[in-house]
Amino acid sequence: MEKYQKIIEDVYLEVKNMPQSGKVANYIPELAFVDPENFGINITTIDKESFGVGDFDKKFSVQSITKILSLTLAYKFEGVKIWDRVDVEPSGNPFNSLLQLEADLGKPRNPFINAGAIVICDVLVSHLKNPKEDFLDFCKEISNIPTLQYNEKVAQSEKASGYRNVALCNFIKSFGNIKNDVDVVLDFYFYMCSLEMTCKELSKIFLFLTIDNFTTQKGERVITESQTKRINAIMLTCGFYDESGEFAFRVGLPGKSGVGGGIVAILPDKYCIAVWSPKLNVKGNSYKGMLFLEKFTSKTTSSIF
Amino acid sequence: MEKYQKIIEDVYLEVKNMPQSGKVANYIPELAFVDPENFGINITTIDKESFGVGDFDKKFSVQSITKILSLTLAYKFEGVKIWDRVDVEPSGNPFNSLLQLEADLGKPRNPFINAGAIVICDVLVSHLKNPKEDFLDFCKEISNIPTLQYNEKVAQSEKASGYRNVALCNFIKSFGNIKNDVDVVLDFYFYMCSLEMTCKELSKIFLFLTIDNFTTQKGERVITESQTKRINAIMLTCGFYDESGEFAFRVGLPGKSGVGGGIVAILPDKYCIAVWSPKLNVKGNSYKGMLFLEKFTSKTTSSIF
Amino acid sequence: MEKYQKIIEDVYLEVKNMPQSGKVANYIPELAFVDPENFGINITTIDKESFGVGDFDKKFSVQSITKILSLTLAYKFEGVKIWDRVDVEPSGNPFNSLLQLEADLGKPRNPFINAGAIVICDVLVSHLKNPKEDFLDFCKEISNIPTLQYNEKVAQSEKASGYRNVALCNFIKSFGNIKNDVDVVLDFYFYMCSLEMTCKELSKIFLFLTIDNFTTQKGERVITESQTKRINAIMLTCGFYDESGEFAFRVGLPGKSGVGGGIVAILPDKYCIAVWSPKLNVKGNSYKGMLFLEKFTSKTTSSIF
Amino acid sequence: MEKYQKIIEDVYLEVKNMPQSGKVANYIPELAFVDPENFGINITTIDKESFGVGDFDKKFSVQSITKILSLTLAYKFEGVKIWDRVDVEPSGNPFNSLLQLEADLGKPRNPFINAGAIVICDVLVSHLKNPKEDFLDFCKEISNIPTLQYNEKVAQSEKASGYRNVALCNFIKSFGNIKNDVDVVLDFYFYMCSLEMTCKELSKIFLFLTIDNFTTQKGERVITESQTKRINAIMLTCGFYDESGEFAFRVGLPGKSGVGGGIVAILPDKYCIAVWSPKLNVKGNSYKGMLFLEKFTSKTTSSIF
Repeated sequence: MEKYQKIIEDVYLEVKNMPQSGKVANYIPELAFVDPENFGINITTIDKESFGVGDFDKKFSVQSITKILSLTLAYKFEGVKIWDRVDVEPSGNPFNSLLQLEADLGKPRNPFINAGAIVICDVLVSHLKNPKEDFLDFCKEISNIPTLQYNEKVAQSEKASGYRNVALCNFIKSFGNIKNDVDVVLDFYFYMCSLEMTCKELSKIFLFLTIDNFTTQKGERVITESQTKRINAIMLTCGFYDESGEFAFRVGLPGKSGVGGGIVAILPDKYCIAVWSPKLNVKGNSYKGMLFLEKFTSKTTSSIF
Repeated sequence: MEKYQKIIEDVYLEVKNMPQSGKVANYIPELAFVDPENFGINITTIDKESFGVGDFDKKFSVQSITKILSLTLAYKFEGVKIWDRVDVEPSGNPFNSLLQLEADLGKPRNPFINAGAIVICDVLVSHLKNPKEDFLDFCKEISNIPTLQYNEKVAQSEKASGYRNVALCNFIKSFGNIKNDVDVVLDFYFYMCSLEMTCKELSKIFLFLTIDNFTTQKGERVITESQTKRINAIMLTCGFYDESGEFAFRVGLPGKSGVGGGIVAILPDKYCIAVWSPKLNVKGNSYKGMLFLEKFTSKTTSSIF
Repeated sequence: MEKYQKIIEDVYLEVKNMPQSGKVANYIPELAFVDPENFGINITTIDKESFGVGDFDKKFSVQSITKILSLTLAYKFEGVKIWDRVDVEPSGNPFNSLLQLEADLGKPRNPFINAGAIVICDVLVSHLKNPKEDFLDFCKEISNIPTLQYNEKVAQSEKASGYRNVALCNFIKSFGNIKNDVDVVLDFYFYMCSLEMTCKELSKIFLFLTIDNFTTQKGERVITESQTKRINAIMLTCGFYDESGEFAFRVGLPGKSGVGGGIVAILPDKYCIAVWSPKLNVKGNSYKGMLFLEKFTSKTTSSIF
Repeated sequence: MEKYQKIIEDVYLEVKNMPQSGKVANYIPELAFVDPENFGINITTIDKESFGVGDFDKKFSVQSITKILSLTLAYKFEGVKIWDRVDVEPSGNPFNSLLQLEADLGKPRNPFINAGAIVICDVLVSHLKNPKEDFLDFCKEISNIPTLQYNEKVAQSEKASGYRNVALCNFIKSFGNIKNDVDVVLDFYFYMCSLEMTCKELSKIFLFLTIDNFTTQKGERVITESQTKRINAIMLTCGFYDESGEFAFRVGLPGKSGVGGGIVAILPDKYCIAVWSPKLNVKGNSYKGMLFLEKFTSKTTSSIF
């Protein structure tokens, strides 16, 4: 397995020296301060061996990547009923489109577009006593990383500028698909997105989607095997906004990106990999992150297909 | 001119006895309590003669009809600059569509769809010290009706259920086309829409769009003649949501409807007419109101065409 | 009435010397050969006095302006039944949008967008033995201009490049709203659009929409007074694609434009005016034509509002 | 491997006795004559063992399933250049939507929606001397089934009623993304869709996507391994119109459906399975086909995730 160290280092160097394209997300003001030169990769195998290169041990804002975690917890609570509130189809439209939501009468296309993630937050608010604390505890438990934290500054920054998400949440509420108070749901949503992790931590927290019989430190299953496969399927078809087809095509693994420049991807029964490079392409996905994963999976002939 | 009394009475009776179609607006809970059998008409000529029939002297919630008044005041303040903030094109879509706003990058199609009226409210909030009071004063002055009032209950009712409008306002703000605080703008918007008038009052307050050299009690012009014509033009092309073409086609006059069931229409240099019947057709316009006006304008061969 | 000669000359000179904006239509290859400097105006009063300036006596391709004539003839044949096939609402979308047609299940928004005009052609094909000849005869009769002709070259040029219109016609047929053979309908459509007239002729042929009791040379009415008003209403709300609101707002008259650079406008009971300047703005309407009419109606305070 | 025979028989019986939902495709008149009770399954393993049940040996119209084959041949000819003509993103819209094509300026979202498949046909027309014959030869070669045939009646039936596809093709040509004559391209398209196969044949012809080093009878590779994986990826994200996410979620395999009621699915390195049941759900995919595959993959815990 030590081949992974060599390969990620080789591909890291190759991609590091390629010209940067894209730009750092600036619609959350606080994110604009991140050094665009950051570039880190970490891979964790199902044997829990971990290999990193570059800035793999630096914290960054994982943003939409946490949507996998909130979906997992909501799915655990609700089972199949969750799909009455949100669909599992690729959106074919930019990530914060209101258009489609209108046509679909307030049922978001999937849990990874903002609209869907907000509905998932609403579901969690209905189930959790202290949504922010309880969700963080869930993340700590499944990752066995007790130091996970939200970034207060990022949460506040997004809150102060997140008019589009306020619009989305009120719009969905007008269709009756938000049950709790809009402010409470959005407060949770903004905090959830502000979770900070390193590549190393990211590639560890998603092992539960990689390993068939994964159990937490306490010996508990997170979700069933069938639920695991279904989340992987949604990641493949919907994990990259309107570039999901492209990622499946070029990389061939289920994955999820965040506007902080992070991407995680999973080869079932093999490994989980996390990449971080803040500059985003026009579709909102990490430019070098996608490039790295394309080259890495080609080199290792990793693909679910 | 007394012919008008006879004609409105005749057409009133004819339409009153026709079967009611449509239903009372219920998305503002308070409006759902209105008796659907109300039916009133009032016409005021440029000589200020007034003729009424039925419930012409009962107050009702004029709702979107006030959007003509807010536009007038904003146009007076800003002149042509106002059209940088809002367009003058028919929308071709339902009145609260977010879809088109997305395509148009936050510039509403016209000042009469909700999105446009909210932007106009934002403009007024920038100009007025006490928006609600000052706007009411403006309405009193141009109508010479000192008793005009908002309906507190209706305003609160819409506020409590107006998620779609909160969504719209935040969405537009995300494009930078709302300058003031969203809550302040919407509070003003909901109050503005809750203005109550009778048909008699409505047909009086819009004389300023009917009479070329109209001056208020204080001897002041409201807006210029050219501005007057332009507001009439917008009423004709945009006054009835996605049924504006139909109204122009069947009635042939500039007009504006509200979800309270009121309609005003103007024959320049002749009269202003107001009709009220609460049941709305599927496009959100008063069913009997449109029917009355079609028959009335046919009978009087009133048409701007 | 001779004041008109002076005014159109003054405004002509003023606008002629202003910088040209926009560009000549090039999607019909043959139209691209027209000299962009052509600029003509003609006004014909209800007393049939005619005043022209510039290139008012040169033939050009009137294109969409003929859609008023085909609508008139179809309305004459079908009466109100025509509105089962085509609506009377502004489209709010570019003139050849398939999007809206899809949402509306094959019923075009109005008879002036391409989709609607093609349906009208289909109606005429059902009624006329020799559509092209019979329609031309109708035009000759109402205008009393026996020399009217199609431009074969333009018709063939559009036919050879009109994939979008072939798409539209087949698309509508898939919804069942085209009854005849697609090729026959489109052949008629392309010829109809290729009709050539001068400004002088244009301002004469539309007198039947201007004069209340208009009769042809043979002493026959074209359509009823009520039908006339309704066509004027559709021109006002739908005559300029997605710039109809703007034209109503700036010019204040019912009118219709064509991609050949022509515009006709009507002041009921007063006059019909035709302008020609080939360069089109981004919405597909004659740049100087709109400018001229705005200045002309301001100067003469002509407006239906 | 013989377990497969037992499992498909068990699931066949279970699903056969469930109530039929959906209806047989009727927009191609000829397809409406098919007996809705047909139900067949066939699985072929990478060892070329074949197991069938029910109507697995009856010919039916594979329709859109051939789009995998035409894409394969075009990809073989053009390599990566093919993606300049067609994208690889899920459409998020019904399978014959013109709306999205308009927004995307004539570049279809993916090669499996009708628009994309028509562009692929255009590419093949540019490469093949006798498109229909040459394509059939390609199909015969990779499947080693020399008896494959088009169904003339089905091809003619679709041709006579395929206005929507004529519209699509002309619309794309108006953007310049069809290079050949519209009639030639569509003739090929209609024939290609009329190809007839049995479940047994279908599960055999797609072995080239299942087996890593697949070679034809002549010992030739069809496409490279990397190209194979990419076609599988597109099948997963785009194979079921706007129900692709649902199929990935419920079945977890790359697959493709046709309106004839057939579905093929692939478990890389294991097997190819084909199901046929003519009644379609509202999204246009075989109702019992999807049901069967969901139960079958659950029972065998087959999934790429």
